[in-house]
Amino acid sequence: MRVLHRDLKNHVDKEVTVKKKKKKKRLLGGITFINIRDRSGLTQCVVKDEAEVEKLRGMQIGTVLTIKAKVKSESRAPGEVELYEPEITVEVPVTEQPAIEIDKPIDHKPENQDTLFENRPLNVRNPEEQKIFRIRSELNRFLREYLHAQEFIEIQTPKLIGGASEGGAEIFTLDYFGKEATLAQSPQLYKQMMVGAFERVFEVGPAFRAEPSMTTRHLSEASMLDVEAGFIDSHDEVLQIAEQMVHNVLTRVYDEHGDMLKELGAPELVIKESFPRFTVAKVHELYTEATGEDTTKEKDLTPAEERWICDYSRDELGSEAVFVTEFPIEAMKFYHMANPETGNTVLWGDLLFRGLEIATCPQREHRYDILIKQMKDAGIDPGHSIFKYFLEAFKNGLPPHGGFGFGIDRFVQKTIGLASVKEATLFPRDINRLAP
Amino acid sequence: MRVLHRDLKNHVDKEVTVKKKKKKKRLLGGITFINIRDRSGLTQCVVKDEAEVEKLRGMQIGTVLTIKAKVKSESRAPGEVELYEPEITVEVPVTEQPAIEIDKPIDHKPENQDTLFENRPLNVRNPEEQKIFRIRSELNRFLREYLHAQEFIEIQTPKLIGGASEGGAEIFTLDYFGKEATLAQSPQLYKQMMVGAFERVFEVGPAFRAEPSMTTRHLSEASMLDVEAGFIDSHDEVLQIAEQMVHNVLTRVYDEHGDMLKELGAPELVIKESFPRFTVAKVHELYTEATGEDTTKEKDLTPAEERWICDYSRDELGSEAVFVTEFPIEAMKFYHMANPETGNTVLWGDLLFRGLEIATCPQREHRYDILIKQMKDAGIDPGHSIFKYFLEAFKNGLPPHGGFGFGIDRFVQKTIGLASVKEATLFPRDINRLAP
Repeated sequence: MRVLHRDLKNHVDKEVTVKKKKKKKRLLGGITFINIRDRSGLTQCVVKDEAEVEKLRGMQIGTVLTIKAKVKSESRAPGEVELYEPEITVEVPVTEQPAIEIDKPIDHKPENQDTLFENRPLNVRNPEEQKIFRIRSELNRFLREYLHAQEFIEIQTPKLIGGASEGGAEIFTLDYFGKEATLAQSPQLYKQMMVGAFERVFEVGPAFRAEPSMTTRHLSEASMLDVEAGFIDSHDEVLQIAEQMVHNVLTRVYDEHGDMLKELGAPELVIKESFPRFTVAKVHELYTEATGEDTTKEKDLTPAEERWICDYSRDELGSEAVFVTEFPIEAMKFYHMANPETGNTVLWGDLLFRGLEIATCPQREHRYDILIKQMKDAGIDPGHSIFKYFLEAFKNGLPPHGGFGFGIDRFVQKTIGLASVKEATLFPRDINRLAP
Repeated sequence: MRVLHRDLKNHVDKEVTVKKKKKKKRLLGGITFINIRDRSGLTQCVVKDEAEVEKLRGMQIGTVLTIKAKVKSESRAPGEVELYEPEITVEVPVTEQPAIEIDKPIDHKPENQDTLFENRPLNVRNPEEQKIFRIRSELNRFLREYLHAQEFIEIQTPKLIGGASEGGAEIFTLDYFGKEATLAQSPQLYKQMMVGAFERVFEVGPAFRAEPSMTTRHLSEASMLDVEAGFIDSHDEVLQIAEQMVHNVLTRVYDEHGDMLKELGAPELVIKESFPRFTVAKVHELYTEATGEDTTKEKDLTPAEERWICDYSRDELGSEAVFVTEFPIEAMKFYHMANPETGNTVLWGDLLFRGLEIATCPQREHRYDILIKQMKDAGIDPGHSIFKYFLEAFKNGLPPHGGFGFGIDRFVQKTIGLASVKEATLFPRDINRLAP
């Protein structure tokens, strides 16, 4: 039976079989040492027998080995154990050098990103690079565990739909048995309808946007977590659901994987249970005052403002996660709820973390008549077949509700401190990249 | 603060605020009773005050109410509590009757399936219908929790790809910024590549197949769980991973949600830790012997055989989950491994559960030279750009590995005992259905 690296310490002075990938060979005082790796870590093996050394001749990194050997304590070796007197079987020989140096730190410089993604199947074999995706796997797990504990039901809604879910131009279309279909930009309409049944729902899945520009914050296929909650008392309850989730997951990942995050160069976590809330107008005011650059005429936040307000909040208020609220009515989508108190803003808060928007958290308009009016005002035909089921759900009663689309790729990026959302993605998609 | 139905028992003799949907109103001896529902259950409320009764006039099922009322013990009411002296606020009035009777059991008869899916946003408000998707949410959760515990890393791979992942005709294609893209039929090539990095990976996501036929077992968009494990000792280890996962998840869902499954009419669970294994040839032989219908010339199993072997195994061997192994070499895909012992079969086992194939569990060919030969034999060009990264991964060493594609919709269907895979899906997609 195969013994993993981390369990070798329980087999000192015994014989074990390990199955691993060859990493490195070196000669020291006439003795050959090989480093071999499995998913739990690196093991050192001393090879003295000439016949065994011969088996490894010409074998490159990646060679798959089965080794029957004895185990001994060795304080200078990784995991404080060492294999000796090995009997080596080469299971899968690798005789050519790989196209990239898997052993060396992977270069994430902006000018090398294309090489990074082009060689992803190989460079993710690098244990340091892997940590990004181990953290990603854990963040996904923690997010879902948190939502399940809060009685959210996980749903799976179709990505092939009969029309554009939210309108707009950035839509992929395709032929669906002779009909036109589009790829869902989000589960927006579905999750709202499902609030009428389950009250609280979430979904994790791909979202498709034919984003024609190349940026560090956009993907044409993104992994999104969509959350929607009914029977809310106020818009702030939507923000609370998001902040409690993010607080829980971030403190948990720093708690359980602090070492891995440190090795990846992630910053220290500066966060509070309640995230500071600023209106868009307030951010413009603070930013203009601090930088001398006048943004008070801007509607949305500029990327520079997003970075600035997070830094400001971290340094002055102890939280690098903040909400920016009261977006101007001009930015409103037909399914949002206008703020009745201001008359010119939307009940919509963006969650920013470490300088980037990671979730848009609005309250929805749940009143049928007003929704219809808002559609018409936005130039959208409520009679279009794609809205048939959606509007029927409102007509038959949907409670006050709100929720958010939460960018998993961006959350991974910012948790680790990567420069681009693409680095947090195994196989990113953009206008120029459809492979691997 | 809102109090949920299930917590009312802790508020007896106190005043509470509940937010619920109206379900039913009835008059008994001059007193009005209303039934109201939240996600945790049904509550009865006694309304005596004429002004309060008046507020409910004309209000249909689905009306959203906030009720401030007193709580008392009442052994004949649901949850053994009752609300009285309510002060009712109609939050969202519903004045039209819904298109379907949400209150009544939802008709799942084959001839009414189209109506079922057409009215999904409303009929899933029916608490009985909801249970299907509550079980589905839990099955998804249990599957992932099991795999995480077995050290599988969750990955998210692209659904927009530059070519057909497995070949074949049933592919959706689309324009991707002027290039041709296809929708992934499975994460097959990606998960195999990732074994080279993480050893054990899984993914949950949509899989797209332009399935031109209407059946009870196919969807053009399915939810798949894909699992892949490296450093396996034998093909049977792949089967063991699948059977341990399924055994764990099924016993857990029957354990934790036995009541809900019973209410849904799910059969009793008949399962063993180790699922019986039959070769395809053996199933043909047993079936022919038992039914007199000669299937010994068939290559694959017929749907009738799939049902028969599961019944047989349940009745004779105490397990309604079985493996059928040794598929004939004619059915082999280029990335499968041929069985060196038989020479004419594949190291491939299908997992059947209650009469339906829910997972295909093959070992992969991990040897670069043989893989290239198999591609050529199958008429596939190893030089095609889509295989560039895939083959590079093998050239740089992939351990012996295998895994499975596991149909989540089918698993939900069979766990509950539904007649069609579509009934286990909120918004099914087939050749005729692209909405809602």
